[in-house]
Amino acid sequence: MSKHRGSNATKYDKQTDAPTEEQRPLSELLRLPAGAVDLSSIPTGSTLGFPGRGKADAGSVTADLRPELDELQERLFATGRSTPETAPKVLLVLQGMDTSGKGGVVRHAIGMVDPQGVDITSFKAPTKTELAHPFLWRIERALPGPGTIGVFDRSHYEDVLIVRVRNLVPEAEWSARYDEINDWEARLVDSGTTVVKCFLHVSHEEQKERLLARLDDPTKHWKYNPGDVDERQLWPAYTEAYEAALERCSTQHAPWFVVPADRKWYRNWAVAQLLVEHLRALDLRWPAADYDVSTEQARVTSS
Amino acid sequence: MSKHRGSNATKYDKQTDAPTEEQRPLSELLRLPAGAVDLSSIPTGSTLGFPGRGKADAGSVTADLRPELDELQERLFATGRSTPETAPKVLLVLQGMDTSGKGGVVRHAIGMVDPQGVDITSFKAPTKTELAHPFLWRIERALPGPGTIGVFDRSHYEDVLIVRVRNLVPEAEWSARYDEINDWEARLVDSGTTVVKCFLHVSHEEQKERLLARLDDPTKHWKYNPGDVDERQLWPAYTEAYEAALERCSTQHAPWFVVPADRKWYRNWAVAQLLVEHLRALDLRWPAADYDVSTEQARVTSS
Repeated sequence: MSKHRGSNATKYDKQTDAPTEEQRPLSELLRLPAGAVDLSSIPTGSTLGFPGRGKADAGSVTADLRPELDELQERLFATGRSTPETAPKVLLVLQGMDTSGKGGVVRHAIGMVDPQGVDITSFKAPTKTELAHPFLWRIERALPGPGTIGVFDRSHYEDVLIVRVRNLVPEAEWSARYDEINDWEARLVDSGTTVVKCFLHVSHEEQKERLLARLDDPTKHWKYNPGDVDERQLWPAYTEAYEAALERCSTQHAPWFVVPADRKWYRNWAVAQLLVEHLRALDLRWPAADYDVSTEQARVTSS
Repeated sequence: MSKHRGSNATKYDKQTDAPTEEQRPLSELLRLPAGAVDLSSIPTGSTLGFPGRGKADAGSVTADLRPELDELQERLFATGRSTPETAPKVLLVLQGMDTSGKGGVVRHAIGMVDPQGVDITSFKAPTKTELAHPFLWRIERALPGPGTIGVFDRSHYEDVLIVRVRNLVPEAEWSARYDEINDWEARLVDSGTTVVKCFLHVSHEEQKERLLARLDDPTKHWKYNPGDVDERQLWPAYTEAYEAALERCSTQHAPWFVVPADRKWYRNWAVAQLLVEHLRALDLRWPAADYDVSTEQARVTSS
């Protein structure tokens, strides 16, 4: 696989000068650095870490991940079947402005994974029942089981994003949630869940293009909602809310990754690559037989 | 199936001339004929209806389904979003002896579908809570929502299969279930769910090969369970139970399809093809915009 990087891949790589960018895992390259977050300083069109020359390579570079992703996911799944009490869980959290491509990532990156091992939850506006519970209640209920990769299309972060922007609860309430989220995620990680939080970072201009593209194509009209423009008009407030969430909730145990999302092919590859790197880090073996193999071979043979 | 869809037409629509044997839909070719069922008379190694020359073509022939499957599934999903009250649902039921490849079908056929639109339930031995309810209780709770393709890896049929073979409830109880299942499926279909029931038909000899293959490969040891041989020794009883279930529960509204499953590549293609044919038959349009497109174009442009 070529290690040549995209032409604008270097803008965000200012944290350190050694080792070189090509040798560093994407999970280091895209990990949000500690400190104040200014989203306007992070490029949305970058192809940081992409091991090809660009869009023309994207299909094959992404497909190249598949055999390893398959095996890693199957080891995870097998471990879940074999030793559910101790098997790891993985939770991929997808957040981003409208049109940033959460659905596209599910389709194209998560779509590469055996669907039996994946549990996708798409969080909508909470129901009355959900609102009657603490905000983490519905989230907790959607957590992946042993050996499973959970995917959250939106998540508990909505409770400090739209809720904050639209004043859906008093400030005293939402402002306490950052710490609650950190504590909750810490417990989740302690209980054996790897948490991979991806902010799909799309530009204001690219969002406009994508909304117009939906309006231009009758097969995409269903994806458009007039409320999308109302939300778009709150872009600065959402940006502020995202910056606060990213800054306050990017922790050692559950960091945020900022995925440049103006290029769909890069975004999809990047999330798949992040998933592969986190699965690799679990370093799972195939479960050993808990029966005598030769005895069973004889039993099957004579059956 | 509609022949003409005007501007909403899919480019994958094919005009059929007088249907030859080869051009008959797979859902006709594999549909269980009415009457007594003798599984030994139905080939397990057949490639009935496969539009290629064999295994060497299987990858490309199956991949060729993908664009149409994508579009049909997305129309279904879009309809579910737009008009959930009336949107259709699809339920694919997978049954078959151990090693017949229910998991392989989920991975390779269902794996082609956008995972957002798919809801997979793998039914294991019922829990104490589930046993405290009527047998259809847990099934009902797993039904797909509007616009969704539900997949059952095992199903309510286990309640007339293993339950019958292993005498888990009195005969009076399991023997009443065939009618209960038919009534329940009829109501399900009436409420807008297309039910596609596939029996993956594998031979006794092929099962032995697959069990031995699992034992020969340490990366597959986790898939093997010594209890598999115990079940295998009940092959004749299971065959009888399957024949009864297929015969009594293949109805006009929810027929059984018998999918020859000794060749994995054929089995995976066949289930994908059956899914495509059933989705096609829904004849869904892209939902129309419920807003004024040019007004919205102006709003987005000036935003």
